[in-house]
Amino acid sequence: MNYHIEFEPLGRRGECQSEHNMLQAARSLGVDIVNICGGVSKCGKCRVRIMEGRVSGHTDNEIRLLSKAELDSGIRLACAVYPLSNCKVFVPPESLSTPQRTQTEGRTIDITPDPPVKAYILEVSAPTLEDLMPDEERIYKTLDSQYKTKAAVMDIEAVREMPQVLRENNFKANIFLRGNEIISVKLASSRNIGLAVDIGTTKIAGYIVDMETGETLASKGIMNPQISYGEDLITRIMLIIRDQKNAEMMQKLDVDAINKITAEMCSEINAKPADITEAVIVANTCIHHLFLKLPVSQLGKAPYIPAARSPINVKARDIGLDISPGGYIHTLPNIAGFVGADHVAMLLATGMAEKNSTVLTLDIGTNTELCLVSGGKMTSVSSPSGPAFEGAHIKYGMRASDGSIERVRIDGDTVEYHTIGNKSPVGICGSGVLDSIAELYKAGIIDIKGNFREHRRIIKDNDGMLEFLLTEADSKKNIPEISITQKDIRQLQLAKGAISTAIQLLLKKHNLRDKEIDQIIIAGAFGTYIDVNSAITIGMLPDIPVDRIEQVGNAAGMGAKLALISGTKRKEAEAIAQKVEYLELATDPDFMKIFIKSSNMGWDNSR
Amino acid sequence: MNYHIEFEPLGRRGECQSEHNMLQAARSLGVDIVNICGGVSKCGKCRVRIMEGRVSGHTDNEIRLLSKAELDSGIRLACAVYPLSNCKVFVPPESLSTPQRTQTEGRTIDITPDPPVKAYILEVSAPTLEDLMPDEERIYKTLDSQYKTKAAVMDIEAVREMPQVLRENNFKANIFLRGNEIISVKLASSRNIGLAVDIGTTKIAGYIVDMETGETLASKGIMNPQISYGEDLITRIMLIIRDQKNAEMMQKLDVDAINKITAEMCSEINAKPADITEAVIVANTCIHHLFLKLPVSQLGKAPYIPAARSPINVKARDIGLDISPGGYIHTLPNIAGFVGADHVAMLLATGMAEKNSTVLTLDIGTNTELCLVSGGKMTSVSSPSGPAFEGAHIKYGMRASDGSIERVRIDGDTVEYHTIGNKSPVGICGSGVLDSIAELYKAGIIDIKGNFREHRRIIKDNDGMLEFLLTEADSKKNIPEISITQKDIRQLQLAKGAISTAIQLLLKKHNLRDKEIDQIIIAGAFGTYIDVNSAITIGMLPDIPVDRIEQVGNAAGMGAKLALISGTKRKEAEAIAQKVEYLELATDPDFMKIFIKSSNMGWDNSR
Repeated sequence: MNYHIEFEPLGRRGECQSEHNMLQAARSLGVDIVNICGGVSKCGKCRVRIMEGRVSGHTDNEIRLLSKAELDSGIRLACAVYPLSNCKVFVPPESLSTPQRTQTEGRTIDITPDPPVKAYILEVSAPTLEDLMPDEERIYKTLDSQYKTKAAVMDIEAVREMPQVLRENNFKANIFLRGNEIISVKLASSRNIGLAVDIGTTKIAGYIVDMETGETLASKGIMNPQISYGEDLITRIMLIIRDQKNAEMMQKLDVDAINKITAEMCSEINAKPADITEAVIVANTCIHHLFLKLPVSQLGKAPYIPAARSPINVKARDIGLDISPGGYIHTLPNIAGFVGADHVAMLLATGMAEKNSTVLTLDIGTNTELCLVSGGKMTSVSSPSGPAFEGAHIKYGMRASDGSIERVRIDGDTVEYHTIGNKSPVGICGSGVLDSIAELYKAGIIDIKGNFREHRRIIKDNDGMLEFLLTEADSKKNIPEISITQKDIRQLQLAKGAISTAIQLLLKKHNLRDKEIDQIIIAGAFGTYIDVNSAITIGMLPDIPVDRIEQVGNAAGMGAKLALISGTKRKEAEAIAQKVEYLELATDPDFMKIFIKSSNMGWDNSR
Repeated sequence: MNYHIEFEPLGRRGECQSEHNMLQAARSLGVDIVNICGGVSKCGKCRVRIMEGRVSGHTDNEIRLLSKAELDSGIRLACAVYPLSNCKVFVPPESLSTPQRTQTEGRTIDITPDPPVKAYILEVSAPTLEDLMPDEERIYKTLDSQYKTKAAVMDIEAVREMPQVLRENNFKANIFLRGNEIISVKLASSRNIGLAVDIGTTKIAGYIVDMETGETLASKGIMNPQISYGEDLITRIMLIIRDQKNAEMMQKLDVDAINKITAEMCSEINAKPADITEAVIVANTCIHHLFLKLPVSQLGKAPYIPAARSPINVKARDIGLDISPGGYIHTLPNIAGFVGADHVAMLLATGMAEKNSTVLTLDIGTNTELCLVSGGKMTSVSSPSGPAFEGAHIKYGMRASDGSIERVRIDGDTVEYHTIGNKSPVGICGSGVLDSIAELYKAGIIDIKGNFREHRRIIKDNDGMLEFLLTEADSKKNIPEISITQKDIRQLQLAKGAISTAIQLLLKKHNLRDKEIDQIIIAGAFGTYIDVNSAITIGMLPDIPVDRIEQVGNAAGMGAKLALISGTKRKEAEAIAQKVEYLELATDPDFMKIFIKSSNMGWDNSR
């Protein structure tokens, strides 16, 4: 007997034999789970969490190797647990031997740093019975005399660390000033480093930056562990409305994940997390609210009102972020319930507010945020493009990691493909799905409506569903059968339709036609890897010359870095958030009409 | 066989039979421990903590009735534990059936409140799909339009509570503004109440005040549980220098004690601790530092430098104080390592900075802080008067609670006394010791050096020490023998000498003579209960007409209340701390000479 098993956060899913344990099932689907003992429940490394479905009971080895808390929270050893129904299994990052491809790159910084936290090395005089001035006043006075700089307050954590730092270092110290507040008193040798983080719905990217030079010292990506509570935001919000405890758990998941990559990045550069004196966080409005422990239930229902839109400065200790105990987290402003600080960061990094031409920028994901600039006017929308690009609801879909097909070319009867890491194919990721469908359309294998015509490689699966074989199973070469089904094509049509509808409504709002777009900037991890020709072929993007289309990588992360090292950029971000007009798609009377047309292959130019 | 058992925090101590358990020992010394089962280890109410000395092992009943944490921390059932040596036993407040007398009274407030936290009732419009303004901006805007008041930031905790409060109350709320920061968004019906606390070395006094009217709504006293770590500050500091964990435990003890009385006061006035939007804390510098989790080890060695002197505003959540999560704690400024915010509060409450005449004020305790004002100059000192006034190191000494002798009159062979609560005498508290020795001196039973002459009531105890019988044992009337020993007299001479030396050095500093003092203000719990004539008789105070001496009760607590309800008073307190000149007794060359003379009975006028 077979069960359908889905492995998260990779999104890899497929039929597995019921007599196989979860470790074997994972392997058969190309999910590489850490395992040292050879699958005999000795090493305890192959921890997974059963999210959905019935499974076999605990073995003695599991009870011995797992803590009470782990057992209670559904953690199992993959090698010891057998499915008793279809299942959804979460594989935590530490159990995954092949890391997920996350994107931390981005353009290099070419601005002059103007960091909100400044460091001053001070040498104060030691107190005596004749000079009883308290440490705090000594620091204020010397800062003023030595640097002509006045501080007004000292964070309680700085007051706490100050006496020992002074007494153990001959009354010499490095004073960290933020505005008029002394936030930290550290050794004179300490550096002025900051943390920038882009928390996406699916992935988290972190950067440690030298705030004096702007240099990125380390960067690291990790999956957003909240994904075990749902791939999209609405699912997460619904879980919170059902039980407020889920909000606390999701908040802790993200903070723990950020603390983890921060510690890892610090150890790479020989620093401690407590050396970081400032953090900038960007995220969409929902993730932003969750991270700050703000309520999100009002984001789950119309009119989708954020609790706060303005930039927030909050002590890192109030959030649980392990940086300098007196340090702040700064969040960039939000725009609306579904256009958040990550969008503002992207607009900041791409310099959208300064464009004199007509520029469209978009960050493609489960929600795609778009902004059109023209004639000094900026308009943003959020479009529910769905998780198809993440490989979800695609028969052989998976997220971008080793072995996923990311490029496809169809030439007559031949299919050429490329997998990430040049590994044997195990599934197909978003850019591979996009390529496949564009190639199917170009080759005439599907029509403008997305319906299959006839082809040697088209077969019917067990449910009678038509599918196009990208690979033909070859057990000697370790190649499984991987196909694109009629349903997969429908999923992509919905996604591409959502995006092209948003673009058309933006053009309509600005009274422009598609040919008038001077430039398209594609930001975000997914956008970096797609073939823009394929995107134009299926009509996800308007048909403009490809040399006017730029793929800029993680612009939101770049925006976070800019805001980290520059007070000027923070002001710019605030101005952007004020300037952008938010367009609510649902209130446009043409929305449905355009959306239905937009699901066709190719760009619809009829408006 | 007998052991010497001391019960803290009452300070009651004496010889107990080794075959008596601690419950019986406590009873024999007049310490009333809660007990329901009749001492057979069934009710588990008579919990005590063994601080010093060897005792019998755990009984099965104790292991059953006490938690692991309690057993680990030395908690025992008094009825089940027997002394195997001299012992020191701590009786927690909940095990004490007779409450300790703590002082929470003080003069009534007669200023116009000008509270740093102001409440504004707002009614904002509800958002719609056409009006997507976030909650935060809605509040800012309405506050401005309705009250012409601009807020600049909103505490993250206020942002957290805001969406629900608005949505559950038709978008009506009470906004609490502190400076330009919105610290809380509460129901429109909520009051604007604050908490003032005076944390003494021995006692804590708390007050809940209506910040709009200045009315004290509730007040409560409790022993400072830190006393289980040492009666005086230096002992506590030394324990911390030995192990930093002790600082955390002491901090938690005080915060827990304050949270406890705050909850009790709140339930009296039908409020919740979370309704309190601001707290003002005053304490001596060491307790202040401990409370704020600031390091204290540098306070334990010359030159005794505070980490901070200026007033501190810190979020209550950073300290663990259970008030409104966005609320602040404000601490008044310190002056020096041993002249703290409680002294500033006393100076504020007694209006010392505005005096045009020559005024001496003092707060008598283990450390006595004094301030002399004359000709626009203010000078403060701290004098180590020791714990004799708390009943420590006095043979029958105890703190002021039911059954302690607080007033004594000697007329020939007759001794008249009065006990607190008119109970049978069990010991003698500070004011009783002071009275006794003044009466002994007036009656000629001791000479100017404090030596006993001859008297019918003078006997020799087992160690050959002379003692004067205040009571004669009478088992029918339930009266034990209580006496004043030669050693007790020496202890008081040290204490009174420390205070009169400080007064004389203050007078010397101002170039004044004792007769030039226009007014003496005695503040503090102990000072309230002493007979000033007795204080003059033994020479603790200079011999000025008693109508120029005023006993004002807990002026430090009053000062805390003033600072709670008035920004103007906070500025005054800061000006006072800046204006006061601190006099370090140890650096005065005449200190030892004057101190030796000052131990004689009567005021020494020879300087």
